[in-house]
Amino acid sequence: MNAIFFVSTNIHKYNEIKSILQNRITDLNFNFYKQNLIEIQDDKIEKIAIEKAKSAYNMVQRPIIIEDDGLFINSLNGFPGQYSSYVFRSIGNRGILRLLEGNKDRSAFFKSIIVYSNGNIAKAFSGQINGNISSTITDDGWGYDPIFIPWNTHDNNENKTFAKLNKTNKKNELSHRRIALDKFVKWFTQNNKLKKL
Amino acid sequence: MNAIFFVSTNIHKYNEIKSILQNRITDLNFNFYKQNLIEIQDDKIEKIAIEKAKSAYNMVQRPIIIEDDGLFINSLNGFPGQYSSYVFRSIGNRGILRLLEGNKDRSAFFKSIIVYSNGNIAKAFSGQINGNISSTITDDGWGYDPIFIPWNTHDNNENKTFAKLNKTNKKNELSHRRIALDKFVKWFTQNNKLKKL
Repeated sequence: MNAIFFVSTNIHKYNEIKSILQNRITDLNFNFYKQNLIEIQDDKIEKIAIEKAKSAYNMVQRPIIIEDDGLFINSLNGFPGQYSSYVFRSIGNRGILRLLEGNKDRSAFFKSIIVYSNGNIAKAFSGQINGNISSTITDDGWGYDPIFIPWNTHDNNENKTFAKLNKTNKKNELSHRRIALDKFVKWFTQNNKLKKL
Repeated sequence: MNAIFFVSTNIHKYNEIKSILQNRITDLNFNFYKQNLIEIQDDKIEKIAIEKAKSAYNMVQRPIIIEDDGLFINSLNGFPGQYSSYVFRSIGNRGILRLLEGNKDRSAFFKSIIVYSNGNIAKAFSGQINGNISSTITDDGWGYDPIFIPWNTHDNNENKTFAKLNKTNKKNELSHRRIALDKFVKWFTQNNKLKKL
């Protein structure tokens, strides 16, 4: 049985990741370890994530996964970027829409960095999805999901926000988090196979 | 001769602090040590500053001063707060004014944390000044100075931004940074006297 702890304060992230990993890694015992981790301030989200994974492992002393993600709005020089969580708590989605009022370029991307560490290594996997910021907040959902409309969505998902797509589990098929986790799963299963040989 | 290094990337801060400290501490050799310090992400600005001072001392190995400051806007739940520097670089003063459009409560405060460390101790001194966010950007100046109007200013300073007050050196008489530095000077000179006894 593979036991991995997801270290975070965000139960929404845990549920999403669990739903994506389920049935893809055999006998995975994926647990939530609720803990606020100290983060460094840095313009590189990858650097923040690797440091966070190291401190998470030191705390749990078992294989862990942490995730850092951010919403990067092109016309706002990447804001809120690596500080997405703080910005959401302070000015929220209404603040973001306000900053973009009258702005033609509403393009943005979500980026996710998944880091796995077992004490010996800390390995990062990234995923990104491009989209637009919607002009209104119409849907329920957590974080920036109610204002992010991904591009290149299949079928008839056009103009649907992550929040709306999440209701039919479509979000998890195409999200930045899913892309990063696909890379992790591939690496992790190969790695496990090697060990078994 | 007292030699202290101010560790920062911000030459404006250095110039302001030097101008305030000059002639107040005898024989002070106050130097600029240009260095970007890794900061932790934390909701408490004091905690960020103390950690920053420790890493600054480890780098310089001589007595150092660092400063952390932030602009806290009450109706935006304290935004941009401890992330003022990043927010300024991304959305700038225009972004702040946009977030406050039509908002009756434009009150805000600047907070400064000065930390001195000589390797044995890391001592923090804080200063705060209340004010309002202006409705336009009319004055030159660095950072948020062009949009911050302090309350309770003496003489005829009413409705003058920090940027305007800085032109006649009035800013340094009343700023959050000045208040924090006054506390530091008092402590530092007493401490030096004790040593001489």
